[in-house]
Amino acid sequence: MGESTYRNVEGNRPRIVILGSGNVATHLALALDKFTDVIQVWSRTPSNSQALVSQLLRASVADNLENIRRDADFYIIAVSDDAVTDIGRHLRDVSGVVVHTSGSVGMGDLKMAVNSDRCGVFYPLQTFSKGRQVDITKVPILIEGCNENTEKRLRELASVISEKVFIVDSGLRSRLHLAAVFANNFTNYIWLLADKYLKENTDYNLEILSPLLQETLAKALEMSPEAAQTGPARRGDTVIVAKHLSNLDPESAKVYKLLSESILNKFHKN
Amino acid sequence: MGESTYRNVEGNRPRIVILGSGNVATHLALALDKFTDVIQVWSRTPSNSQALVSQLLRASVADNLENIRRDADFYIIAVSDDAVTDIGRHLRDVSGVVVHTSGSVGMGDLKMAVNSDRCGVFYPLQTFSKGRQVDITKVPILIEGCNENTEKRLRELASVISEKVFIVDSGLRSRLHLAAVFANNFTNYIWLLADKYLKENTDYNLEILSPLLQETLAKALEMSPEAAQTGPARRGDTVIVAKHLSNLDPESAKVYKLLSESILNKFHKN
Repeated sequence: MGESTYRNVEGNRPRIVILGSGNVATHLALALDKFTDVIQVWSRTPSNSQALVSQLLRASVADNLENIRRDADFYIIAVSDDAVTDIGRHLRDVSGVVVHTSGSVGMGDLKMAVNSDRCGVFYPLQTFSKGRQVDITKVPILIEGCNENTEKRLRELASVISEKVFIVDSGLRSRLHLAAVFANNFTNYIWLLADKYLKENTDYNLEILSPLLQETLAKALEMSPEAAQTGPARRGDTVIVAKHLSNLDPESAKVYKLLSESILNKFHKN
Repeated sequence: MGESTYRNVEGNRPRIVILGSGNVATHLALALDKFTDVIQVWSRTPSNSQALVSQLLRASVADNLENIRRDADFYIIAVSDDAVTDIGRHLRDVSGVVVHTSGSVGMGDLKMAVNSDRCGVFYPLQTFSKGRQVDITKVPILIEGCNENTEKRLRELASVISEKVFIVDSGLRSRLHLAAVFANNFTNYIWLLADKYLKENTDYNLEILSPLLQETLAKALEMSPEAAQTGPARRGDTVIVAKHLSNLDPESAKVYKLLSESILNKFHKN
């Protein structure tokens, strides 16, 4: 990692164009800006690209896709999944490597759009939000390149900002993405239901569970979630499960019931 | 917090007897040992009480319930829920305050067993495991006392080890306990399913999601889980939901389907 580790073929800091101005585009641009030359930002919403550019050292705004510079080393398309190939089609004549940042769009789709082997994927396995700093050096970056040279250049670029770079093909990346969605979205939803229950039934909210939830996650990661599993369903205590069900609203009870049955099924199947 | 803040009526460090030697008993005994005199430990399994006593400064083992010292200031019953009142019945003639540490056992049950107003509850809202250190100063301790004087003494004792002491009656405590079980057990189970999926479908395990999961929890706590909710169901993207379902094993698919329907129902009802 660090500035000295990566130069482009001319011996200069690599030049980067960012396409998009959402959370992924912003966090990647800010991280890359320290170690590379982020030279241009394009966004469908010009005020957003302007806002991002104002946080960068050397970048300017591309006011439309025709004005994108053709001489960058990397073009990072960080937009919603269904807009990736549209933008790729505007980058057929660039000299650099074109990547998207999506967990679930295949590399082949981008390759067809750009019509070139200078294509790949640069997928940070993290959730980014406006205004929240993330230590990107710890974020796994999953890369894929259409050929060996492209892959090598992407590995070098990713290593500039992260300690954890993995080469992962489109099929594997989409499975990792599914696991990430599963582990992230549904735990957040469980907390949403717990927060709602607390607000409706006590004077507290999720905050009072903060040390418990942090310890629960630390245990799951250190011990494995199978060894860390606790609770009435884990113990096979169906009396407490029934008691809890009678105290929950219908929607939370539905979730509690299904997950308890699934835990019972896993740990107490005869 | 701290040693100087709390003395018993005779101006001495309060004397504590611990009944139990499991995870809650062990963590509480170790935390209290610094600021009070933990004088005795009893356990149904003598080798366990011996092991705990060996980690304490001044405690000795009580080899049976008849040999428990009668002159302690506090008796902390930290055993499984269904054993609390049995042990309470052996503490009818002690002079100190008798508490249990359970989230779901009512104070009234213990009061009947001990047959005294010197009864209460001392419930740490945390999950404890063998060999894992927990910063107990940040752990909420929910206390309840049969009368004002008992409550005052318990508040003073809890404040010796934690910055977060709450006076909470049995009904409210059992609701907080339910929220804790819900938020803790089911998120761990979601991680278990994600870990299983990763192991079966990739060369990775839950570890690769570690930065993502930590950020997801931090976001839920700082922004509220409702504002932090993301994912295909949150966006109403039923095409991706269906695609994910077709790639999961039946048990994980059942969980994915129900939780996605619940999220859709919450965020996209008409």
